[in-house]
Amino acid sequence: MNTNAPIPPVDGQLSPRYAGFTTFARLPRLGDAPTHDIAIVGVPFDSGVTFRPGARFGPGAIREASRLLRPYNPALETAPFATLQVVDAGDLDCNPFDITAALAEIEAGLSTLIGDGKQIVVLGGDHTIALASLRALAKVHGPVALVHFDAHLDTWGPYFDTPVTHGTPFRVAIEEGLLLKEHSAHVGIRGSLYSADDLTDDAELGFTIVHAREFHTTPFTDIIQRISDRVGDAPLYISIDIDVLDPAHAPGTGTPEAGGLTSRELLELLRGLKDKNLVGADVVEVSPPFDHASITSVAAAHCAYDLVSIMARR
Amino acid sequence: MNTNAPIPPVDGQLSPRYAGFTTFARLPRLGDAPTHDIAIVGVPFDSGVTFRPGARFGPGAIREASRLLRPYNPALETAPFATLQVVDAGDLDCNPFDITAALAEIEAGLSTLIGDGKQIVVLGGDHTIALASLRALAKVHGPVALVHFDAHLDTWGPYFDTPVTHGTPFRVAIEEGLLLKEHSAHVGIRGSLYSADDLTDDAELGFTIVHAREFHTTPFTDIIQRISDRVGDAPLYISIDIDVLDPAHAPGTGTPEAGGLTSRELLELLRGLKDKNLVGADVVEVSPPFDHASITSVAAAHCAYDLVSIMARR
Amino acid sequence: MNTNAPIPPVDGQLSPRYAGFTTFARLPRLGDAPTHDIAIVGVPFDSGVTFRPGARFGPGAIREASRLLRPYNPALETAPFATLQVVDAGDLDCNPFDITAALAEIEAGLSTLIGDGKQIVVLGGDHTIALASLRALAKVHGPVALVHFDAHLDTWGPYFDTPVTHGTPFRVAIEEGLLLKEHSAHVGIRGSLYSADDLTDDAELGFTIVHAREFHTTPFTDIIQRISDRVGDAPLYISIDIDVLDPAHAPGTGTPEAGGLTSRELLELLRGLKDKNLVGADVVEVSPPFDHASITSVAAAHCAYDLVSIMARR
Amino acid sequence: MNTNAPIPPVDGQLSPRYAGFTTFARLPRLGDAPTHDIAIVGVPFDSGVTFRPGARFGPGAIREASRLLRPYNPALETAPFATLQVVDAGDLDCNPFDITAALAEIEAGLSTLIGDGKQIVVLGGDHTIALASLRALAKVHGPVALVHFDAHLDTWGPYFDTPVTHGTPFRVAIEEGLLLKEHSAHVGIRGSLYSADDLTDDAELGFTIVHAREFHTTPFTDIIQRISDRVGDAPLYISIDIDVLDPAHAPGTGTPEAGGLTSRELLELLRGLKDKNLVGADVVEVSPPFDHASITSVAAAHCAYDLVSIMARR
Amino acid sequence: MNTNAPIPPVDGQLSPRYAGFTTFARLPRLGDAPTHDIAIVGVPFDSGVTFRPGARFGPGAIREASRLLRPYNPALETAPFATLQVVDAGDLDCNPFDITAALAEIEAGLSTLIGDGKQIVVLGGDHTIALASLRALAKVHGPVALVHFDAHLDTWGPYFDTPVTHGTPFRVAIEEGLLLKEHSAHVGIRGSLYSADDLTDDAELGFTIVHAREFHTTPFTDIIQRISDRVGDAPLYISIDIDVLDPAHAPGTGTPEAGGLTSRELLELLRGLKDKNLVGADVVEVSPPFDHASITSVAAAHCAYDLVSIMARR
Amino acid sequence: MNTNAPIPPVDGQLSPRYAGFTTFARLPRLGDAPTHDIAIVGVPFDSGVTFRPGARFGPGAIREASRLLRPYNPALETAPFATLQVVDAGDLDCNPFDITAALAEIEAGLSTLIGDGKQIVVLGGDHTIALASLRALAKVHGPVALVHFDAHLDTWGPYFDTPVTHGTPFRVAIEEGLLLKEHSAHVGIRGSLYSADDLTDDAELGFTIVHAREFHTTPFTDIIQRISDRVGDAPLYISIDIDVLDPAHAPGTGTPEAGGLTSRELLELLRGLKDKNLVGADVVEVSPPFDHASITSVAAAHCAYDLVSIMARR
Repeated sequence: MNTNAPIPPVDGQLSPRYAGFTTFARLPRLGDAPTHDIAIVGVPFDSGVTFRPGARFGPGAIREASRLLRPYNPALETAPFATLQVVDAGDLDCNPFDITAALAEIEAGLSTLIGDGKQIVVLGGDHTIALASLRALAKVHGPVALVHFDAHLDTWGPYFDTPVTHGTPFRVAIEEGLLLKEHSAHVGIRGSLYSADDLTDDAELGFTIVHAREFHTTPFTDIIQRISDRVGDAPLYISIDIDVLDPAHAPGTGTPEAGGLTSRELLELLRGLKDKNLVGADVVEVSPPFDHASITSVAAAHCAYDLVSIMARR
Repeated sequence: MNTNAPIPPVDGQLSPRYAGFTTFARLPRLGDAPTHDIAIVGVPFDSGVTFRPGARFGPGAIREASRLLRPYNPALETAPFATLQVVDAGDLDCNPFDITAALAEIEAGLSTLIGDGKQIVVLGGDHTIALASLRALAKVHGPVALVHFDAHLDTWGPYFDTPVTHGTPFRVAIEEGLLLKEHSAHVGIRGSLYSADDLTDDAELGFTIVHAREFHTTPFTDIIQRISDRVGDAPLYISIDIDVLDPAHAPGTGTPEAGGLTSRELLELLRGLKDKNLVGADVVEVSPPFDHASITSVAAAHCAYDLVSIMARR
Repeated sequence: MNTNAPIPPVDGQLSPRYAGFTTFARLPRLGDAPTHDIAIVGVPFDSGVTFRPGARFGPGAIREASRLLRPYNPALETAPFATLQVVDAGDLDCNPFDITAALAEIEAGLSTLIGDGKQIVVLGGDHTIALASLRALAKVHGPVALVHFDAHLDTWGPYFDTPVTHGTPFRVAIEEGLLLKEHSAHVGIRGSLYSADDLTDDAELGFTIVHAREFHTTPFTDIIQRISDRVGDAPLYISIDIDVLDPAHAPGTGTPEAGGLTSRELLELLRGLKDKNLVGADVVEVSPPFDHASITSVAAAHCAYDLVSIMARR
Repeated sequence: MNTNAPIPPVDGQLSPRYAGFTTFARLPRLGDAPTHDIAIVGVPFDSGVTFRPGARFGPGAIREASRLLRPYNPALETAPFATLQVVDAGDLDCNPFDITAALAEIEAGLSTLIGDGKQIVVLGGDHTIALASLRALAKVHGPVALVHFDAHLDTWGPYFDTPVTHGTPFRVAIEEGLLLKEHSAHVGIRGSLYSADDLTDDAELGFTIVHAREFHTTPFTDIIQRISDRVGDAPLYISIDIDVLDPAHAPGTGTPEAGGLTSRELLELLRGLKDKNLVGADVVEVSPPFDHASITSVAAAHCAYDLVSIMARR
Repeated sequence: MNTNAPIPPVDGQLSPRYAGFTTFARLPRLGDAPTHDIAIVGVPFDSGVTFRPGARFGPGAIREASRLLRPYNPALETAPFATLQVVDAGDLDCNPFDITAALAEIEAGLSTLIGDGKQIVVLGGDHTIALASLRALAKVHGPVALVHFDAHLDTWGPYFDTPVTHGTPFRVAIEEGLLLKEHSAHVGIRGSLYSADDLTDDAELGFTIVHAREFHTTPFTDIIQRISDRVGDAPLYISIDIDVLDPAHAPGTGTPEAGGLTSRELLELLRGLKDKNLVGADVVEVSPPFDHASITSVAAAHCAYDLVSIMARR
Repeated sequence: MNTNAPIPPVDGQLSPRYAGFTTFARLPRLGDAPTHDIAIVGVPFDSGVTFRPGARFGPGAIREASRLLRPYNPALETAPFATLQVVDAGDLDCNPFDITAALAEIEAGLSTLIGDGKQIVVLGGDHTIALASLRALAKVHGPVALVHFDAHLDTWGPYFDTPVTHGTPFRVAIEEGLLLKEHSAHVGIRGSLYSADDLTDDAELGFTIVHAREFHTTPFTDIIQRISDRVGDAPLYISIDIDVLDPAHAPGTGTPEAGGLTSRELLELLRGLKDKNLVGADVVEVSPPFDHASITSVAAAHCAYDLVSIMARR
């Protein structure tokens, strides 16, 4: 093997896919490769949730569900692990009892992985952690565009006097200047709100919304185009709350809302962003205690695989 | 608070959504509000089923799944609990061993709630109970239009010499003159039948059918228009057998049939009836022992929420 | 009863659908009817799998899930059990420890059922068994057209030095001259591959592919037409790996891939082949230990019912 | 094979235990053997329950769980299928909507199987059906001794004006003179009661009770002796409500009570009655929708196997 | 009804046990009775856990599982709701993001219920909340004896710099002088420790331990006597971490340890304390997302029922 | 840190127990420590099963369930990771389609780990693999004593012409001279057999049996003594088929038999062998697809922890 070639995933022809220590897609661990271009990293933190907990077990479950991922991604026509060194950086340790402390620990851990601009895919954990990602990335890239797949806006205000929870990361991110708001969008929004003001407040923050309902009235390719146009050439962060999927596709999550996307729709939307400058991404809110037969984890693992593939294409 | 304003649901900012006694959407109980405009009421009765039982636990499960419902419905642009007093009237007690007796008890209980024309949303229980709803409503409104979401026609004849079961309510309702048959429709029908006569018999009763298959060949908006036109301005009853959804979206039901609707399709169909004169509705056949992670109950709760919202818009 | 009429399924009006010994659709066993035109037969074999096992329990679970099937199929406008004698031939016994021996046992058992050209619907078991079906059918029909519904190509090469596994049946079938490759197609393909060569290798074998992604960009009726045109008038074998469905619709399977078909899409695709000369079929890779509330088994049972109905129409 | 020898179960060396149509212990069906000495028969009836339904699926689940039963019972030192013809008589069809009609149908079906004194093991269904068993047996044997394993007394009065439900069979049996009350006992009783009168009423009916609590204070062999002495030489009926087991051992049941027996205790208690004149028995209240990994069904199947073995020893 | 008699639970003869709003044992709510002697109260708080969360859903699940509780407790020969007014006080709202704030809210809520000495049974929630109970009770009773059923000592030190978590309540309680340590015991302890010091530290705090292992070597009645002697006549608080049960009996908990007690053992141990001066109690660490068929919740509900019964006997 | 001290598990005070890559008890991987004294190794092989498969996922599930294991074992008064270097050697890769090839691969892998006499704890996988362990150990130690915990004898003959399956390892081991038969015992045996000869054949092979039934008639300490006496001072191999536990304690296994041991009994039996010369051990037949809330895996992990602790004590 060319010593400069990336260390590839464990070969499924030599080691059955159900065997061996678990890493994302059977990739080498951070310490087992000399360097890395893209780091996949877990953040087992769910102390910011307001309903069903359990996302602390998300990174482990997504890794298990990624055992079937093979090296070539035909939808994106790329072999993401072949030219760049992708590693599984394990989990960041963070305080389960103190959100502020945890955010600092996460930001520090991510910054180390990012260095001067390496790409990251964060496996949550609840949506609180997206704020840490954005803080870490902004230090390198400045404010970034955000495509946020979710049933919920996550631009709400403090809850029980706590300013940062899983319902608030993008409000805070706007307030901290971490986002290019004219290039940012929520996709898949649905479900009940506290009041009509939620929508106007969100619009005032600068976001645009693709509601889940619109998939019945707008051609799919138009939706993709609309999101793509919104992002433009900006450095992009994609945040996927797995509850953007319908509960049928993602039962294992904390605040399920009927009327969501299918996994096929979500994957195609991601692929519509294949030529963007994706600097970081997360897949969050997978709560394994509520999952069945790993279907939520499988969907999340496939999203992460497409995210890495987009990063690898450039 | 203006003493004339409705008593609202428990405030999620003061009491976490997972806390407190369970009522639908955390609304006040019937006895806890001075009056009511719309009553949500459970009918834990499943003695009319022919395959999987368990719907007796449906009302409780739907209530639990409604804890995440917030006050504003953006899809219907209404805050359904803000101007009308919506209450959770609890469950009607009915005889588990005698269908005839149970129907009388249910009808009496519903009539009390309806009074001279208050609206009701009934949480089943099996589909047998729709007959009691129609009897109670017809006493106030005369015959009504029916939009019936279901995999099955439910216009079959007696089963084991029993004239009213969960497979017969709408045949009996037609025979009793409770329905405006030229304004009534089945939506989502699919699956095997006893014979081709089932379809002709149903047509002779006066119904029209939107088959589940048609969603692949007819534009979605055309289907909505067709149903809306069928109803016209008649007083409307909407009956939702949750098995209208595909088993992926509603595993927790008694007689699952592959090839069903998605929860997004069902919710959009309901919203297509937003300007109708909805006098009553039910959501039935949620069988929690077969559900997973409450996805069936969540879908049912969201349907009930949209039904209440339609009622509140007028 | 006319003694020449087929022995029908148990009458649901006399025996509740949850009662009695289990056979597919409550049909008579092979030995309980004087002859048969179509045989449904289980092959409880899963020793060819590479990830999650459990499909050995598939035939039993599909039979249980078929209890709700009634005699008339409105989507195909046929009463499949009324004019032809359809029987449940039980399960073929085969060696769980030796794939080669098992394939010989399966082929022999199927040949007995096929005789000089009777139709078969095989309930798997893992996809390895499709090779035995094709071998048995080719002895009577010569090479056949194949419509193969699956997430995976199943034209891979040996795995752990084993030439026939659940990933290889169609490569071997081509090599053995069992297929009319210009009339064969894979439908629903998606997910990651070992390399880009997988696709070119498959094309060299002669297959065409309808990727799952295409359902977002190609009108549904065009896809049906394309598959139908490909098959033409050739004798047809349909092989359904239940993982062609999205994990939401088929959690109970061995190698789930996000982004799949809905059960409604799959059934409609089958119905698009209603006028073909269907000589045999299988439904495989249902793994009950990973199923929930039988949703995967229900989907499989409904597929098998449509397959029998297509056979009965001619 | 000696033509007079019983037809044995399917041979596990020729047909894997997971293969083939399902009958209890893979025994021949009633119609597949020329005669029978002992009949195992299902009664899929659960319309007499007062809490969780689902026992209608009990017979099928117990049969599935009996696939691992082998021909020799070392605990009872007998090969129960070797000298007597044991058959699986399938399920009795009975009306799901009318308890009185169902009881008559069950009694008639059981009487046919019993003939002039053949033994029966009934797989429920809910406990209501024990009354039909006792009625059928008393016609041949006169009143019988009863050993009743249960968390509940089942000698309660009418419920919702219905005289026979799953809470009443043994009160009615006493009133109808079907039991030798001085030879009858409840074993495993525990949990809350309506009032202290429940115990005195039960005592007045003539029963003795072995409370579940006593297993902590009385040597196990003493309990066995006490039950054995109570029965004496009377013809015996054993009725096992699976909820006699702790919910850990039998989650799949309708009215679980903490503090129950282990499956090892229950099996040993049965074996303590090995020399009794067991004329009939039932295993009831297995509710598969609440079971996990078939543990309740396995326990029930093993009980039924020991019951048949006791019958076969004499 | 004598107006001075307590308001009883809903009558199961008039309203089926699966019907109606959920309160513990179908008792009246706090506001629905003029006063109360004993309050059952939920504390849906699980932000102090170190492994599996989910106990925030414990109070609701225990209430659901208490629907089968009837008015008379034969094991304790008392009708606990007949002479004293027992109420369900609902859930205390507390901050999910701040343990210190939550403890203050819980203590305040409990103090209101306790008043000048009313008894409380707290349904958790994680074990952190026991500290709030002890603080509230000590204000009225001074330090109390503690019988603590648990797999774990819960006298560990700070975790992630947080002084009060679910692993520390009894260390802090000792430090705050809330316990009569010479009258306190841990029962059911097992599993691995951080070091041998854990045991010596615990002994220095003043506790005695009944290890789970001792149940194999010490007669059961001796264990009961030993616990009873330890408590003596002191005012007693009983704290039941449901993980004292073996995972077979309590899968639905956060930190399961093999080798635990059976539910029958636990209930009998409680009954051994029937003549004590029980001033308060809790049942904690029921985590419904990990439960199956409610078996953990049923065990917890039965414990709570026995606790109330002990309180009512005096 | 003393460079000669073993590398300890990840510290739960620095990294939450739910975080980080998964190894047994959070121990270092084989390659992450300079050497090892005891190796824990997974063998994800289940191609030798005769009923429910799934044990290939056993090693991963047991590792996940071992996250709660802390450094000190009070029952065995040892800190097993403190003085010896214990490592997790990962999984051995072995052919899923060829039992003979797989056994050779496993034996080779284990021999490498054993070297000149290091101890191993093997996590299965099905029971077939015990033969490979015994072959590898006998090369170093000569024949060894066996204490075999299981519901089944596993001394059966060939099945489907295959000489080594999960039902045969100890017959073959005797035939190959790998066992000191006069020092070997089966413990926990129960359930039905093929014939009475199974017992005599087993006795002729030289084994003694402690039947599960004996736990009701023989004092627990006598059973421990009997097993201990049998082993004497011989080098010992302990093989734990998790189905020795009752299905309540181990639902996640392939061939469940009612009437088994509790996890507390099993752990105490192991501790009764604390002073033996334990040279190797396995814990097999954990089938995660049938487990619930990891209770089977937790029991298996605790067994493995006690096995390591016994090894570390000497």
